Amino acid sequence: MEFYRITSKENDIIKLISQLQKSSSKRRELGLFVLEGLRICSDAVKNNYDIEMLIISETANEKYSENIEEISYKSKKNFVLPDALFKKISDTVNPQGVLCICKISSYSPEEINPEGKYIALENLQDPSNLGAISRTAEALGIDGIIIQGGCDPYSPKSLRASMGALVRIPVFQTDNLFEIFETCGLRSFAAVVHTKAESLGQVKFDKGCVVLIGNEANGLTDNAIQMSDVLVTIPMRGNAESLNAAVAASLIMWEMSK
Amino acid sequence: MEFYRITSKENDIIKLISQLQKSSSKRRELGLFVLEGLRICSDAVKNNYDIEMLIISETANEKYSENIEEISYKSKKNFVLPDALFKKISDTVNPQGVLCICKISSYSPEEINPEGKYIALENLQDPSNLGAISRTAEALGIDGIIIQGGCDPYSPKSLRASMGALVRIPVFQTDNLFEIFETCGLRSFAAVVHTKAESLGQVKFDKGCVVLIGNEANGLTDNAIQMSDVLVTIPMRGNAESLNAAVAASLIMWEMSK
Repeated sequence: MEFYRITSKENDIIKLISQLQKSSSKRRELGLFVLEGLRICSDAVKNNYDIEMLIISETANEKYSENIEEISYKSKKNFVLPDALFKKISDTVNPQGVLCICKISSYSPEEINPEGKYIALENLQDPSNLGAISRTAEALGIDGIIIQGGCDPYSPKSLRASMGALVRIPVFQTDNLFEIFETCGLRSFAAVVHTKAESLGQVKFDKGCVVLIGNEANGLTDNAIQMSDVLVTIPMRGNAESLNAAVAASLIMWEMSK
Repeated sequence: MEFYRITSKENDIIKLISQLQKSSSKRRELGLFVLEGLRICSDAVKNNYDIEMLIISETANEKYSENIEEISYKSKKNFVLPDALFKKISDTVNPQGVLCICKISSYSPEEINPEGKYIALENLQDPSNLGAISRTAEALGIDGIIIQGGCDPYSPKSLRASMGALVRIPVFQTDNLFEIFETCGLRSFAAVVHTKAESLGQVKFDKGCVVLIGNEANGLTDNAIQMSDVLVTIPMRGNAESLNAAVAASLIMWEMSK
C-alpha cells in the first residue's frame, strides 16, 4: 500500500487527530474517533470498523510491517510520520507508532438479541469505569453495552481503560434506554442500593435481560428505577454505603453469566 | 476545646500537611497521614486512629460544630483557618473544611484472624484500584487487606477512592506476605490468568484463607505463584486477556463471601 508522508505539525490531518482526541462534540459531529496502538487498530479491522486513515511512525513501519500491511489494506488512506512528529500526536508516553481514524460504528437496536444479556449504563461519568465495565462484559460473555448519556465510549481514556474491548463488543448509544428494552422485549433490572430490592445471588437473570447501572455519585434516575421491571441490590455489610460502579456492574455481570 | 488560629501559609503545620499529602516517604518517615472530609475524619476517630491534629475552616467550624467537637476531643491539637487558607491546603475542589493528621495505624500480624478471609495485594500500582478493592472488601465482609509493595494506602488518592473504607477495615502492610500466611495458618490462593488453574465459582474458600492479587500490568510474581497453595482463575471468553485488577479482586471477594 502507498503511504503518504507528513512532516509538518501544521498538516490538517495532524490537527484533525488532535481535535478528535480532545473533543467529544467533534467526534460526534464528524462521526469519527481515534484509536491508538497496534492491537486495538487490528481489532477494529477484524470487527469491521471502517478505517478512514492509518497513521504510523517510521519506526513502527519497520517494526510491525506485517500487521501494519493488513490494516493498511482496509484503510482508505495511509500516512507515515517521523517518530518525533508521531510522539506529538500520541496520547501515550511511549507510543507504539500506530494510530487509526475510524468511523463510529452505529449499532442499531435491531441488532440487539432478544434472547441476549445486556448491561445498560445511564449517565456513567468516569471513562475508567466505562472501560473496566466493557472489559468485564467481554470477558464474561455479555452480549453488549447500551449507553445513555455520561462519558463518551470513543474518548481516548475510555478506549484505553477498555483494553480494546469497546471495539470488540457491540456498543449501542441511545437517548431512550427503555424504548430499546421494550422494542427488544428485554426484561430490565435496576441496580440500586435499597433494602427492599431483590438480592444479587438470589435473583435469576433469564435470557433476554438487561441490568441498568447508574451514575457514580447519584445512582440511577427515579425514572429509570420506576420504569424497570425488577430492582436488584448487592447486599452490603459494615459501614459501606456503596460500591465502585465498575465493581457493582461486574459483580452483577458475573451472576448474569452463570 | 481550644482551637488555635493559623493565618499564614508559611506556618509549619501548613507545610507539614502539604508534605504528607504529596510524599509517601514523608508519611513513612513520620508515621503520619492526612485525612480530609468530615465523615472520614469521624470514621478514623471511631476506629481508634490517633488524631494528632484537627484542622478546620471557619465555615466548617460553624456548619459542622457538633461533629467537629466530637473529633476535637480526641485530637491532640486543634486549629482553625480562614476559608481561603484552608482551600489552599485542601486536596479537593470544593473542600468541606475538615482535615486531620492521623497516626498510621500499624496492625500487627497477631491481629489476623486465623479463621478469617483476607485479600492480599502484591505490588498493586493504582490507588483507584486499591480504593475500589477496599470498598468492596468492607461491603462484602472481608476481614482485612494485606499489602506488600505497590501504592500507598495512606495517599490522598487511595483514601478518596476507598470512600473511607481504608480507615474502617484492618490494613496490614508487610515485606513478606507468605511469612504472615504461614504464621497465621491461612490457606493461600493465587489469582492468575492460567488455563490450568481452578475456576472461580468451583473452588471453595473455607475459613482461614487469603487470595492474592497481583500488579495491574504484570500479575503476581513467580515467587507468589509458586508459594501459593492453590491457583484460581476467572474463566474468560472472547478476546479478553484480563480483567481490571479491582474487578478481578471484587469477583473473587464476592465468591469468598458466599
